[in-house]
Amino acid sequence: MKLRVAGTLGYEVITPTTFILNIHALRTPAQAVLEENFTVEPYFKFEELAPQHNESRFIRLEVPEPAKVNISYSAIIDTSFKQTPCNQLNHVPVAAMDASVLPYLFPSRYCQSDKLYRFAHSKFGKIDNAFEKVLTLTNWIHDNVEYLSGSTNSQTSAYDTVAELAGVCRDFAHLGITLCRALDIPARYFTGYAYQLNPPDFHACFEAFIGNEWIIFDATRLVPLNGLVKIATGRDAADAAIASIFGEVNFMGISASCQLADDNFEPVFYNGNDSHGLTYL
Amino acid sequence: MKLRVAGTLGYEVITPTTFILNIHALRTPAQAVLEENFTVEPYFKFEELAPQHNESRFIRLEVPEPAKVNISYSAIIDTSFKQTPCNQLNHVPVAAMDASVLPYLFPSRYCQSDKLYRFAHSKFGKIDNAFEKVLTLTNWIHDNVEYLSGSTNSQTSAYDTVAELAGVCRDFAHLGITLCRALDIPARYFTGYAYQLNPPDFHACFEAFIGNEWIIFDATRLVPLNGLVKIATGRDAADAAIASIFGEVNFMGISASCQLADDNFEPVFYNGNDSHGLTYL
Amino acid sequence: MKLRVAGTLGYEVITPTTFILNIHALRTPAQAVLEENFTVEPYFKFEELAPQHNESRFIRLEVPEPAKVNISYSAIIDTSFKQTPCNQLNHVPVAAMDASVLPYLFPSRYCQSDKLYRFAHSKFGKIDNAFEKVLTLTNWIHDNVEYLSGSTNSQTSAYDTVAELAGVCRDFAHLGITLCRALDIPARYFTGYAYQLNPPDFHACFEAFIGNEWIIFDATRLVPLNGLVKIATGRDAADAAIASIFGEVNFMGISASCQLADDNFEPVFYNGNDSHGLTYL
Amino acid sequence: MKLRVAGTLGYEVITPTTFILNIHALRTPAQAVLEENFTVEPYFKFEELAPQHNESRFIRLEVPEPAKVNISYSAIIDTSFKQTPCNQLNHVPVAAMDASVLPYLFPSRYCQSDKLYRFAHSKFGKIDNAFEKVLTLTNWIHDNVEYLSGSTNSQTSAYDTVAELAGVCRDFAHLGITLCRALDIPARYFTGYAYQLNPPDFHACFEAFIGNEWIIFDATRLVPLNGLVKIATGRDAADAAIASIFGEVNFMGISASCQLADDNFEPVFYNGNDSHGLTYL
Repeated sequence: MKLRVAGTLGYEVITPTTFILNIHALRTPAQAVLEENFTVEPYFKFEELAPQHNESRFIRLEVPEPAKVNISYSAIIDTSFKQTPCNQLNHVPVAAMDASVLPYLFPSRYCQSDKLYRFAHSKFGKIDNAFEKVLTLTNWIHDNVEYLSGSTNSQTSAYDTVAELAGVCRDFAHLGITLCRALDIPARYFTGYAYQLNPPDFHACFEAFIGNEWIIFDATRLVPLNGLVKIATGRDAADAAIASIFGEVNFMGISASCQLADDNFEPVFYNGNDSHGLTYL
Repeated sequence: MKLRVAGTLGYEVITPTTFILNIHALRTPAQAVLEENFTVEPYFKFEELAPQHNESRFIRLEVPEPAKVNISYSAIIDTSFKQTPCNQLNHVPVAAMDASVLPYLFPSRYCQSDKLYRFAHSKFGKIDNAFEKVLTLTNWIHDNVEYLSGSTNSQTSAYDTVAELAGVCRDFAHLGITLCRALDIPARYFTGYAYQLNPPDFHACFEAFIGNEWIIFDATRLVPLNGLVKIATGRDAADAAIASIFGEVNFMGISASCQLADDNFEPVFYNGNDSHGLTYL
Repeated sequence: MKLRVAGTLGYEVITPTTFILNIHALRTPAQAVLEENFTVEPYFKFEELAPQHNESRFIRLEVPEPAKVNISYSAIIDTSFKQTPCNQLNHVPVAAMDASVLPYLFPSRYCQSDKLYRFAHSKFGKIDNAFEKVLTLTNWIHDNVEYLSGSTNSQTSAYDTVAELAGVCRDFAHLGITLCRALDIPARYFTGYAYQLNPPDFHACFEAFIGNEWIIFDATRLVPLNGLVKIATGRDAADAAIASIFGEVNFMGISASCQLADDNFEPVFYNGNDSHGLTYL
Repeated sequence: MKLRVAGTLGYEVITPTTFILNIHALRTPAQAVLEENFTVEPYFKFEELAPQHNESRFIRLEVPEPAKVNISYSAIIDTSFKQTPCNQLNHVPVAAMDASVLPYLFPSRYCQSDKLYRFAHSKFGKIDNAFEKVLTLTNWIHDNVEYLSGSTNSQTSAYDTVAELAGVCRDFAHLGITLCRALDIPARYFTGYAYQLNPPDFHACFEAFIGNEWIIFDATRLVPLNGLVKIATGRDAADAAIASIFGEVNFMGISASCQLADDNFEPVFYNGNDSHGLTYL
């Protein structure tokens, strides 16, 4: 599926500042970047860095002097995905997991899975099939947590969300990840562009490692899963923030958009009848 | 109903220490203290203090020198209670509450009702009758929180319990109080002796102010409600601790017991068929 | 000292709502209310309630229907205070405290003194004179916590402030109270009007019980202590909120002012040379 | 320096369980494993896994049936280290850091550096030299946090420790890491064996990335820095736990020891006169 994505960030830089930006679409076998354009206005030096495991293509940008900086990214992306029947999406025993997957079992800044062990097990522990288990907990989040702009901040963690029951996409993702990990299912944060997100913005959801695949889940149910464009994955938002800023700046603005560049689009959501998990490789 | 209660506390006092002890049965129109005996071995000066609103009869004990101190209380108590049909136990509008009740609407140390507003409303907000509402949330606690000795400590609050889903009687009470307050129902902590508590110990539960009465609820369901002997009520365990200690001591031991001194006893628990609330005045 | 105070609150009431308002100046032997005026526009029924211990004169206001409500209070207040030399402001042993003071030793919603016991003792435990001890901890707060509007919210507690080191007057007060209680010094929240507060607003500080007096302390050092007009005291902001709201409303606005109605005013701040504590009875 | 290390773990396995164990000494250019022996009694299948960046050599052990399992590791290790003068240990700008170092700037489960930004900057932000900065914050931890066995648990984080001021080596390390990251200094958790640790146990401390080296710091000051044997590094204890357990077990026991296998040993601690940082590669 072809999607045209764009993102902009604006800052007033006050002291010399380094930005680490996650706004580039990842390049993967399942996600080709057909065209892309990245500009910094006025121009300052930047470089693309790719950490281990192809989790992101982040940009490091140095602004060594006070300036009003506008950062723009646009691209045409061709995504493909596969659907796996849920009966193939079973729990992978820890004993059989690849070593690179194991870190996604451990608690992280916003995903204190060690503290929600009992919660996860009492509510979802008895579900046998791993896809059903994760889908059920995703549905629980959707049904119990209110999507409420401004209700949370950058310090809000899954431990808060499970009690306060309000949040935004990032909080929904953190809670999903946390419950998975508490159930010994590796899970990671997904940040990206999302077709049909209204109002347009960057989006966050999560991937769970079941059936030896990273299957995508979105507890917000705001967008079709096959309209996502992956920017980065990480342990949680601490790893995959749109912008990590080392210096003093004033925030000026942010925007993101994602439009269809193809003719046909059949939206995919999970529901009771559709027992297939969606994978972005 | 006549009950024979006893409690002991032992401390090795290291520096001059003042104790505030809540182990005396309260004297109320519904709870007569027929006999009682309080000893401190070796003897040190103590006095009984009764704060406003007859919430407790606490003892202030001064131990000005190092000593191994054994504190004992025993009493014979005659409790009476009344049962009010749930259709008379409606929500009291804040506008109609007596001023003395209002403080029990506000959050306290272990009962952060401000943080569980959404949780309480989404789960229990739609239940019309106040007794049913509190009974339902009490049942939710019983069904979702595991009674697990040693799983919590003196700093554990309702905000923790709602996520961690384990605790002891004190935690069950704090969560019940918190949910009530979040629903604009005044609620207070109840500490006392409890007949048929196994193993014998001091007990905690809570009272909710509905139908202009303080109706007793116990989310642990460990003991019959009509076998309780009230020691104190307060905003939460911070107000009504068995022992608040100002000085350096080593804890040596604690025990409590409660036995029937009457012939007949018909245990009262709330259940679906029994729609009456129990009041200790 | 004569001070002219005024406060206004505006709300768009959406559902039937009860307000509990703490904006009236307290009447005490040391604080005479010479004139006062309270209006609700449009008019809705209200009543003044005075809880135990003369801690506040709060208003309960019922707005039974949707309305835009403007609440105004103005008054002329004559305050007097006394200054006590610090050598008379010694620690009151728990054993010698009046029973009504004891609740202010216990932790409360925003003042988790049980969790800051070690912090308080390691930093301030060795100071002998109680006034010096509280003044020192107040100065520590002033020097270490940044006064930063918007840095905290209604859920912020002293436990957060001691780590995050930013807050507003309410947070400074909560931390002061918490450290006192951790040191076995009763302390309570003070909300009031404040002369020379810039920008004008309601203010919060705290009182510590030393030398058998409630001595006032203000870690913000924003205003002279003798320009305060007391509205209410309580365990913390949960007890003495300007407005506790039971119903659905939109907040429209708030203002407070405090002006001198006397000729002469000699501002009192605590400092190294002035070793007197200020009491409002 | 040659050191003889040993570690044992005992568990009663109740349900099929997978262990991830960090008890093997890491193999690095600066740490040669001369001999080692690892046994599981009774025997169950295990494998050594080495994740990216040579952060650990962890063992995955499967115990598919109930059993009492004793796990033993012993080894002779030859460590070498270098000392770098502090004037070469300057802050590495984020713009100049290798991509693999960047994740250690971000907050993690036990190291909420985002919440202690102000704390770190107000106390340590003005120190120019990076080694001095980290040494000063390490000393602050040593001087302000009490080493107290049993005062914390596996959920305790740096945010707690900065308020509660008590903990064990793990908590000291987490706080050091957190303060470094809040100051834009990458920092990581170090778990290992430690010569002269009394009583003998596994130990934890941390490494800070300054002067393009990972310099070791230990806020406990319990052991000489050159007597450490590295087992693993990670973002915090979540990554580098001695044992992560997936299954139901009873803990039976743990021990660790570290003895000198060389003749001469000159203990290295940092102090005012010795301005060199120690690196284990």
